[in-house]
Amino acid sequence: MEAAATRPVLRVAAICGSLRKASFNRGLLRAAAEVCEDSIPGLRVDHLDISDLPLINTDLEIDGGFPPAVEAFRVKVAQADCVLFGAPEYNYSIATPLKNALDWASRGKNCWADKPAAIVSAGGGFGGGRSQYHLRQVGVFLDLHFINKPELCVQAFQQPPKFDSDGNLIDAQIRERLKQVLLSLQAFTLRLQKD
Amino acid sequence: MEAAATRPVLRVAAICGSLRKASFNRGLLRAAAEVCEDSIPGLRVDHLDISDLPLINTDLEIDGGFPPAVEAFRVKVAQADCVLFGAPEYNYSIATPLKNALDWASRGKNCWADKPAAIVSAGGGFGGGRSQYHLRQVGVFLDLHFINKPELCVQAFQQPPKFDSDGNLIDAQIRERLKQVLLSLQAFTLRLQKD
Amino acid sequence: MEAAATRPVLRVAAICGSLRKASFNRGLLRAAAEVCEDSIPGLRVDHLDISDLPLINTDLEIDGGFPPAVEAFRVKVAQADCVLFGAPEYNYSIATPLKNALDWASRGKNCWADKPAAIVSAGGGFGGGRSQYHLRQVGVFLDLHFINKPELCVQAFQQPPKFDSDGNLIDAQIRERLKQVLLSLQAFTLRLQKD
Amino acid sequence: MEAAATRPVLRVAAICGSLRKASFNRGLLRAAAEVCEDSIPGLRVDHLDISDLPLINTDLEIDGGFPPAVEAFRVKVAQADCVLFGAPEYNYSIATPLKNALDWASRGKNCWADKPAAIVSAGGGFGGGRSQYHLRQVGVFLDLHFINKPELCVQAFQQPPKFDSDGNLIDAQIRERLKQVLLSLQAFTLRLQKD
Repeated sequence: MEAAATRPVLRVAAICGSLRKASFNRGLLRAAAEVCEDSIPGLRVDHLDISDLPLINTDLEIDGGFPPAVEAFRVKVAQADCVLFGAPEYNYSIATPLKNALDWASRGKNCWADKPAAIVSAGGGFGGGRSQYHLRQVGVFLDLHFINKPELCVQAFQQPPKFDSDGNLIDAQIRERLKQVLLSLQAFTLRLQKD
Repeated sequence: MEAAATRPVLRVAAICGSLRKASFNRGLLRAAAEVCEDSIPGLRVDHLDISDLPLINTDLEIDGGFPPAVEAFRVKVAQADCVLFGAPEYNYSIATPLKNALDWASRGKNCWADKPAAIVSAGGGFGGGRSQYHLRQVGVFLDLHFINKPELCVQAFQQPPKFDSDGNLIDAQIRERLKQVLLSLQAFTLRLQKD
Repeated sequence: MEAAATRPVLRVAAICGSLRKASFNRGLLRAAAEVCEDSIPGLRVDHLDISDLPLINTDLEIDGGFPPAVEAFRVKVAQADCVLFGAPEYNYSIATPLKNALDWASRGKNCWADKPAAIVSAGGGFGGGRSQYHLRQVGVFLDLHFINKPELCVQAFQQPPKFDSDGNLIDAQIRERLKQVLLSLQAFTLRLQKD
Repeated sequence: MEAAATRPVLRVAAICGSLRKASFNRGLLRAAAEVCEDSIPGLRVDHLDISDLPLINTDLEIDGGFPPAVEAFRVKVAQADCVLFGAPEYNYSIATPLKNALDWASRGKNCWADKPAAIVSAGGGFGGGRSQYHLRQVGVFLDLHFINKPELCVQAFQQPPKFDSDGNLIDAQIRERLKQVLLSLQAFTLRLQKD
């Protein structure tokens, strides 16, 4: 169809909540980028780095201006069509570096407003699940529209292994479930976009 | 009573979740220290600074060792008899600097384990309330024993003013409610201490 | 516009979580019906009674069939275009009669699936707020799409009085905020409907 | 020790959140009773039936009096030394019959006040975990003192089978973890009891 052919590609801002290099959640986001490139036309994953954001302190805002790393991050969030969070669970709640990024892009003009979003997690226990529900509550204030289904919480320490030692996803079933999350995010984003 | 006279003073580690100088939550903790000194024998508030903790990244741990600021903070948490959180709400969840401090002192040997704790908050909306319930869920994993009552969520922008422009608590009713929180924390701490 | 003129009226299923006759939350829903009739073309509130639903027990399902009152309720939920919950807070969580209704209409073929929804509450403390966040978590599983804003939590016992002794809303400001909730629900429902 | 020998047995009120006969959560509570009888001196599990409580409606309270089934239940809660909840998850939150019981015994004089408590769950997904955190939030208002550890969320549909078709626990490892929950509840109850 002509209309579909000329429709611009949707940009997904992918944000990993952990700063660890070998983070499983970062591995999920790398796999998401591959899945889009390989098999989801119209959806492209851009990884947004949050490692250089200072710990939030509104005393760092000068005359409504933000530190340069914050400003650059805010611009990238604002440009995205939707958001994919790689959301590890730290102590039964949201990973602190992720919360830090959420906070900075919410200050002044809220950069998250009205964006569709999805969450994927990996970890022990519930696979990051407790983090996801706290993040959804944050999304009420930030005005994020989370997809409801499917949810993806990878129980990373169950056999067979899900990730290699560099944090790369090596499980085909989870890769397929990740694809379903991305397709759901794509469909919800298109549905919410005004014509 | 002689026994009471020789009982050692309980040390409360007071931790403010915001790094802002004029933070209302910091003001609540300053008021808590004054209340203890003025009218609660046996309870002393020590303010623990968290402003120099790096943003959590477990890659910063070398051979199980922590950055010096983290190590110093962990020692102070471990020495406290109980904990008082000044817990602002950021985007419907825990303030990020507070979550950062919670995470650092949980790594390796959990420094929070088995400590009684209480939460006070100030802010708009529910006065920080949403933050308190997320913090309580974190406490399940950290093995904190929170008092249930009274809860203190100061709706900071209602009239008459509750704080001055430096963040000092100026409302006598809230000061009295704060005292009740401290008395409840003291009683719960004594009850949980083994003889 | 012709298209708008022939667009069918959206039906809002309004469900009160309390069985009390003089419930404030029931009063909010009555006011919502009036507001729609008076000033929101294209939106109609239908009150769904939940007082005759038995307490949920899946042993009451016979060969996949439901008790008659349950069946009738399920049909009405399925027919609605969107849902408005009057959601009191019972003991810091969802009112039990409301949870009962949510459960019954979720069994077998989930009647809530893919419906836009909004929540209004009235009560002491946070005005029902804690209930709303638990209800939003339930909505993830039920596949409800809640509007994010505005939120309406009426602190029912603050002066001046918000309700009369029969539970009728008598506060003009809250009536206006209620209208904004309904307009947001209408807009979100239209946005999510496929053309 | 003589003191220990004469110490009265602690009574645990065990409450199953599901009304289903073959409920796994009911099976967990039956196993808990057996474990106490077999191997935990000083702890006795009494099952409290909640199947005949009417759906909560405060219009049913006449002059501060409760329906007879409610009154009987309230007396049993009040007499217990501590509480063990068998807490299934319904639609990502507390099972409705359990919430109903919690509500009835909280009315007027709160029967739960100051009691130690523990939660065990079984189910699909997180094994009932989401229910447990909502229940803990309810406990703040009801003034229940939950043990933090260990938590027990039985993923009931993983292999090998954990329950037989009547809902009896048949897994030795989970029985041992259940015992650890009971020992923790016993220790916390003794610790909180005033001498």
